[in-house]
Amino acid sequence: MSRAAYNNPVLVEVVRGAIVESRHSGAVAIADAEGRLVLALGDVERPVFPRSAVKALQAIPLVESGAADSFGLGEDELAVACASHSGDAEHVEAVRSLLAKAGLDEIYLACGAHWPVSDKALRAMMQAGRRPQAVHNNCSGKHAGMLATAVHLGLDPRFYERPDHGVQTMIAGIISETCGVRLDRAGMGVDGCSVPTWSLPLGALAQGFARLGTGQGLEPARAAAAARLLRACFAFPALVAGEERFDTIAMRALAPALFVKGGAEGVHCAALRELGLGVALKVDDGAKRGAERALAEVLAVLVPEARTALADQLDELVNCRGSSVGRVAASEVLRRALEPLTATPRRQAKAR
Amino acid sequence: MSRAAYNNPVLVEVVRGAIVESRHSGAVAIADAEGRLVLALGDVERPVFPRSAVKALQAIPLVESGAADSFGLGEDELAVACASHSGDAEHVEAVRSLLAKAGLDEIYLACGAHWPVSDKALRAMMQAGRRPQAVHNNCSGKHAGMLATAVHLGLDPRFYERPDHGVQTMIAGIISETCGVRLDRAGMGVDGCSVPTWSLPLGALAQGFARLGTGQGLEPARAAAAARLLRACFAFPALVAGEERFDTIAMRALAPALFVKGGAEGVHCAALRELGLGVALKVDDGAKRGAERALAEVLAVLVPEARTALADQLDELVNCRGSSVGRVAASEVLRRALEPLTATPRRQAKAR
Repeated sequence: MSRAAYNNPVLVEVVRGAIVESRHSGAVAIADAEGRLVLALGDVERPVFPRSAVKALQAIPLVESGAADSFGLGEDELAVACASHSGDAEHVEAVRSLLAKAGLDEIYLACGAHWPVSDKALRAMMQAGRRPQAVHNNCSGKHAGMLATAVHLGLDPRFYERPDHGVQTMIAGIISETCGVRLDRAGMGVDGCSVPTWSLPLGALAQGFARLGTGQGLEPARAAAAARLLRACFAFPALVAGEERFDTIAMRALAPALFVKGGAEGVHCAALRELGLGVALKVDDGAKRGAERALAEVLAVLVPEARTALADQLDELVNCRGSSVGRVAASEVLRRALEPLTATPRRQAKAR
Repeated sequence: MSRAAYNNPVLVEVVRGAIVESRHSGAVAIADAEGRLVLALGDVERPVFPRSAVKALQAIPLVESGAADSFGLGEDELAVACASHSGDAEHVEAVRSLLAKAGLDEIYLACGAHWPVSDKALRAMMQAGRRPQAVHNNCSGKHAGMLATAVHLGLDPRFYERPDHGVQTMIAGIISETCGVRLDRAGMGVDGCSVPTWSLPLGALAQGFARLGTGQGLEPARAAAAARLLRACFAFPALVAGEERFDTIAMRALAPALFVKGGAEGVHCAALRELGLGVALKVDDGAKRGAERALAEVLAVLVPEARTALADQLDELVNCRGSSVGRVAASEVLRRALEPLTATPRRQAKAR
């Protein structure tokens, strides 16, 4: 277990009345495709598990292998393969359709079941007295993509979730090459959905997102696969997460300039394609509340339109009666660190 | 907003594979009824909102005023007045019964509505196509108790949640006297259920729990009221929280030696009655996961039976397929800080 010094700055403060009630510390890396760090706040060298933030990288073999073309997958199916979806009807339908095109059944999904993230889907299932199945797992699209890849490549579709399966070793290679890091088996964990998650530094993850967003530094076929997956996510942002969720709202407002993907335990990444930058952050305690608020601040500084697109849902702390009782605010440390990166207004940028 | 230095130690580590994935920092105070600190780990002077951890103190006027006797309240109704309940049928029934004895209707509850904490209750409501009401709010018992107190004292039962209402000023006085601190209006926040929450240092909160648990340092009538409320909670531990919840499990196993109550945003308090100690801790980021794990460690060190009673559900990190993928562990800093407090085995303690 790591005994490294531990002193990341507070990124987000939860304020109630006049008191800071809770604090989310963490680290933020912003890098370009060559790995130059534009911002390194906190420890961006310590390995973190990217979890679902790298689902687009995990989906690259689906396109690169030819499976997507061979099975005639549509953009909706590619989007859900990159998704941490809410388990709404449209998500389940896209996952089932992807599986069916690969000639597979839901029984092959190794992700395990959990109740849908979506309140609407949850209510509908409970009203019908139904229990969640693997297809409702937020990762089921990723798993369906892995399965389709295995089938296309003639690999055994069973045990596709194991680290030594061909699909997982392809994915590990892609993450390693895209992020410019060697992956160490000692740094591998098992994700909530049972596939490997490979720890890597936030700085490398930010570089990986810069490459994912721009294609720079990638082989042409990989750059084309990445671009196709991102186009699919931009065409179906609601399939990548779901209604009222950060990633869907952000991409609806800001795509194709922005690709964004959150992961469990406070990881959140973004590709700012016009700026050629990747962002990777992790909140130390793993709270989505902190990660989303911190990323909203980063995006608001780098992309002027983001503040309006994301501010509504993020600052106010509302209680059970709907009264405002405080706010969830970016810390002064985070705001000061971002100041040098403040975007020039869009009009000037265009005039350059 | 506080700009104080911020350097609480890590109390709990979430480990996945061989990597510490997430960390919960915070502070822990253990004090006796005179306010002597047996342990002060992290900043125990900084004011924190105790939130629902002080519900037993907020319920004291219900007994002390004579309202509980006047309305013939049973121990079940007193327990739910101290509760952050799960919204199961038994909780709702106890709250309705308390209100009915005070001659009031649910319409008076100012706590606002939220879906029940209990999966079972949630499923039942969703299956029936029902929406949550104020009575399902985890705080509805506390609110019913405040309402009954107001009615008994001839105070207007409307606006009982406001800081200047007689019931709230009584509660503020009780918290101030029990914890030995002056409460400052500038340090007041509005809780999730719309009543005031008064910030105070963890050290004072720990002292307050030592007094609550032992009666030491309290006026006889208040000590009697506190003891009666705790007896009610020990008689009905499932009404204070609910099935599969920390406080219910802990009190079922360890009452009457232990009274324990959690609050929102990572606050958790306990009274170790035989040891004459109070415990108050807060996890900086507000995560229940961290607070419960840290408190389990404190209890396990101070009360040997606690490790067995609480260990099962706390250490393992299990994924969607039920596989163990890591653990939620007390940090070395916390374990070392607690070492000097290690309990003598029960047999020796009894032999003294």
